[in-house]
Amino acid sequence: MIKKIKVSTKKRIQMVDITAEIQGVISKAKMEEGLIHVYCPHTTAAITVNENCDESVQKDISETLSSLIPHHRNYAHTEGNADAHIKAAIMGSSRTLFIQGGKISLGTWQGIFFCEFDGPRTREIWLRIIKE
Amino acid sequence: MIKKIKVSTKKRIQMVDITAEIQGVISKAKMEEGLIHVYCPHTTAAITVNENCDESVQKDISETLSSLIPHHRNYAHTEGNADAHIKAAIMGSSRTLFIQGGKISLGTWQGIFFCEFDGPRTREIWLRIIKE
Amino acid sequence: MIKKIKVSTKKRIQMVDITAEIQGVISKAKMEEGLIHVYCPHTTAAITVNENCDESVQKDISETLSSLIPHHRNYAHTEGNADAHIKAAIMGSSRTLFIQGGKISLGTWQGIFFCEFDGPRTREIWLRIIKE
Repeated sequence: MIKKIKVSTKKRIQMVDITAEIQGVISKAKMEEGLIHVYCPHTTAAITVNENCDESVQKDISETLSSLIPHHRNYAHTEGNADAHIKAAIMGSSRTLFIQGGKISLGTWQGIFFCEFDGPRTREIWLRIIKE
Repeated sequence: MIKKIKVSTKKRIQMVDITAEIQGVISKAKMEEGLIHVYCPHTTAAITVNENCDESVQKDISETLSSLIPHHRNYAHTEGNADAHIKAAIMGSSRTLFIQGGKISLGTWQGIFFCEFDGPRTREIWLRIIKE
Repeated sequence: MIKKIKVSTKKRIQMVDITAEIQGVISKAKMEEGLIHVYCPHTTAAITVNENCDESVQKDISETLSSLIPHHRNYAHTEGNADAHIKAAIMGSSRTLFIQGGKISLGTWQGIFFCEFDGPRTREIWLRIIKE
């Protein structure tokens, strides 16, 4: 069964830590051992895993991506969000995480992030748990 | 069981929408609920998920990648396709999709793309379905 | 069950072929058909799949990434490894591979690589096998 969570942003480009929401879905499902696949059904947003301790890391990821793939350029796509599609395609639409003893198995400094590249918006994230 | 589909390209760099072929494999397997893992066994090609409505998005993704990672440069790999290896490593060799009610669960604007970076060629894509 | 392997590097940026170690885990588990998910629990390292025949390809991937995302720049994160976080976020924390007949199903030229972006260090890689 696909579970859905919602995430809202306030800026055009924003990384939102969704680790706690995802853990909540796992806990509610009483899943002890397996995998969770985190899927972004949007074409101008993505999922990544990175440091959730120092917020400056998220700033560096967003700003470096935008310096490489600027908002405005002579893109063929004329809706003003061509950069967001390119960033989303590169970052990836899904991530796979492990569940052990009822908890997401993350490294010490890791969190799961929803990457909004064309906000502010309210978006959906889809989750699917696979029992080992 | 690994299922295989073939895809042919006409250009060096080309994004090919393979959503219908993948749905065909799921329908034939009569899989109702689960996951499909889409895997590219080639080192100069990749899989991504992005907009399949306006073709200009695919053009922007390909051209921006090539502006960042040009075809010719002083690469160490001398087979003339070093850029294709780099692009493939960054974009990723696989994507995971959800299946619900016998259909791939995609966002409104999403399609699954095979990304050829060193064509034209005929390539294989490998698929594996996991029942929930 | 999560299996863990260790990998040590000698340089700040280094791609290490971990295909044989992963095959060893599969063989020991006597898994014949399914998937293996390869997960990096670190925020300045990643997993990718690419050519393991000509080592110059790994050099080109590392050096091109570093030319796009330089070690030193006016990053907000002041630990001297902001570039490594960005590279890791883009390359991705996990890869999914198929197992068939007890072997990892790789394309002719493919190997699985641990990408160290902030070494030298000794790191862990987590593996989870899912039976088909």
